[in-house]
Amino acid sequence: MAVNLATKNTADIYPIEGIQLVTAKAGIKKANHTDLTAVLLDQGCTVAGVFTQNRFCAAPVIISKKHLNSGTDIRALVINTGNANAGTGEAGRLAALSVCDALASQYDHQSNQILPFSTGVILEPLPVDKIIKAIPSFQAASWLDAAAAIMTTDTQPKAASTKVMISGEEISITGISKGSGMICPNMATMLGFVATDAAITKSVLETLIKEVADESFNAITVDGDTSTNDSFILIATGKSDLPIIDSVDSEAYALIKKALSHVALELAQAIIRDGEGATKFITINVSGGRSKQEVKQVAYAIAHSPLVKTAFFASDPNLGRLVCAIGYAGVQDLDVDKVKLYLDDVLVVENGGRAISYQEADGVRVMAKSEISVNVQLNRGSYETTVYTCDFSYDYVKINADYRS
Amino acid sequence: MAVNLATKNTADIYPIEGIQLVTAKAGIKKANHTDLTAVLLDQGCTVAGVFTQNRFCAAPVIISKKHLNSGTDIRALVINTGNANAGTGEAGRLAALSVCDALASQYDHQSNQILPFSTGVILEPLPVDKIIKAIPSFQAASWLDAAAAIMTTDTQPKAASTKVMISGEEISITGISKGSGMICPNMATMLGFVATDAAITKSVLETLIKEVADESFNAITVDGDTSTNDSFILIATGKSDLPIIDSVDSEAYALIKKALSHVALELAQAIIRDGEGATKFITINVSGGRSKQEVKQVAYAIAHSPLVKTAFFASDPNLGRLVCAIGYAGVQDLDVDKVKLYLDDVLVVENGGRAISYQEADGVRVMAKSEISVNVQLNRGSYETTVYTCDFSYDYVKINADYRS
Repeated sequence: MAVNLATKNTADIYPIEGIQLVTAKAGIKKANHTDLTAVLLDQGCTVAGVFTQNRFCAAPVIISKKHLNSGTDIRALVINTGNANAGTGEAGRLAALSVCDALASQYDHQSNQILPFSTGVILEPLPVDKIIKAIPSFQAASWLDAAAAIMTTDTQPKAASTKVMISGEEISITGISKGSGMICPNMATMLGFVATDAAITKSVLETLIKEVADESFNAITVDGDTSTNDSFILIATGKSDLPIIDSVDSEAYALIKKALSHVALELAQAIIRDGEGATKFITINVSGGRSKQEVKQVAYAIAHSPLVKTAFFASDPNLGRLVCAIGYAGVQDLDVDKVKLYLDDVLVVENGGRAISYQEADGVRVMAKSEISVNVQLNRGSYETTVYTCDFSYDYVKINADYRS
Repeated sequence: MAVNLATKNTADIYPIEGIQLVTAKAGIKKANHTDLTAVLLDQGCTVAGVFTQNRFCAAPVIISKKHLNSGTDIRALVINTGNANAGTGEAGRLAALSVCDALASQYDHQSNQILPFSTGVILEPLPVDKIIKAIPSFQAASWLDAAAAIMTTDTQPKAASTKVMISGEEISITGISKGSGMICPNMATMLGFVATDAAITKSVLETLIKEVADESFNAITVDGDTSTNDSFILIATGKSDLPIIDSVDSEAYALIKKALSHVALELAQAIIRDGEGATKFITINVSGGRSKQEVKQVAYAIAHSPLVKTAFFASDPNLGRLVCAIGYAGVQDLDVDKVKLYLDDVLVVENGGRAISYQEADGVRVMAKSEISVNVQLNRGSYETTVYTCDFSYDYVKINADYRS
């Protein structure tokens, strides 16, 4: 029941020089299912990552952070679906390390040159033996194959690609993501891997990934649940002829950031479009706030309200629920008489009540669409933010009541 | 689909001397429907109230607060269902005042001696004329009749009563409440009215109501949406022979607080038991925190997680979702290895992972019950809290997708 989720073909997704993808069937949760992926990096790549804020973060998150900070060149990512290796304590961390050891041994690297990632059921021991046994059977795969291999409740593989000209050089960017529930700001059960053939210094890459994440993976929410495993990784292989990007003030930085953000936003939005049970794609813009924090509070109050989300599902222009969510967002001194609320371009609330110009027919017309924007003007400052979410349907309950995630 | 919601008989609910109840059919939303209630107070009652924190608070909330602070004796409450008079701006405040004027005129009071309350659809103009026209047709009613007359999506009227001996005098306490969705801490679309025949000074009553609300109406949540109209009112008629309670340090204060809290908690829990689509009643205890705030954060993270709530609906001991909610509750320096989690008395998580003693069969046994407690020990301090919630079912979506609240 995905909302306008584009189906990609292999030709749409450009390979990135310096990266080989491989997949295997480890039988982690289901037999005969491609559930193990490795992203093999040539020597000389730079890698940066941002991770879940959840205190019960998964073992692979702890190990990946440690390996990223160890100062060695990262040479491979290994990703399993079917088991999250989260809430597994010290045994889970040893399990993640064993997977790194096995992959390092297979490809003649050191264990701390491997970043492990897991997604799937929480609080179950990782079946390490199955994973280790499958590593020798890795087969070459495309980015689209890898996108399919990392899925959990996703209905479609998620991949995006673009090319951008920088200083006369054609730079390629390709990424994949997974996630369709438990999606929340600051990284939810989502994995995102984006790579470019540009050369970028590690310190610049670390700034770049935070800026890109804020506009993409940190601006989406399905149900407000921040998962234990969320990770977003950015890889620069340096195989293009473009000189290394070593400053955030350069034109090359601005151009690559724009292109990377485009790909990351498409991958992030794909997660919302494939949100569990989603039938509507909702863009929430909040402007005119006194701080970044207050515009985010208002946007997430709307995005997380089950009453607002069920009204979208019903295509019901239930403006009261939107107004109510703005009111309880926690902006203590908000003057509601100054707030303006639009559904797409239809003004629905001003002067503390329903706009005199508002016609129910206009609200009904907007709500019937599959893509709707909610625009809130607080009219008290200059900060703004955009958050993406989906509606809340019978199928959300069905999927989450049936699936042991 | 209420969970163990007791059906009350008239004999269970004691009248309170000094209070008359009346109801009428104003046809606010539906024709021939009892939707208007007045609570008429004899001279000499003291009255206190606590109200929603929502910035888009309803017009009657603004007027009730103003009248409570005006220093006059409150002589009547007037409550309509079918329309919330919220998000209605200045016109809404004038409408609420017109209702007060009409009731004052009917019973020979002043307008500022009346407290107005509304519940129902938001952002629609209050049909003042229908209400004013119905006032002369008020008929005597019981507390149970009044409980039925203030319902919206409630499936049953909610009333509770108790008697307590204080210094050899029998004191009666009776209350009614409404609400079955949009229930959240700090007052959600719920109305609660509790009265006693004890005499209590206004300043003591104002302390008392806050303490009682914290243990009852502010400890429940269905979906995290704090409504525009929530109000909890406490009335002391002073008709008993017990000397006036004029100090919070007296034994009489402790006794009446305990009895009032008992009634208020039953009324608050009735709202959860009647939660929209509820099939399970969940009690969440969080102990061992360093502050009141952090134990509440953890309790509400669990109570508001759609993934936790759908797992309860499915009777699935999906411990990972509980662990995940604890992890993202925002307790920044939480040591997850010290956290213990129990489902009823079954230890499920310790040392950062699933307890070795845990058997899936025990989890399944607890989750199959209609009343379940989740007990979280943070083991880092001495604060604790209890929050009550319900599960999240197909019917929640159905009710909220169908009903224009």
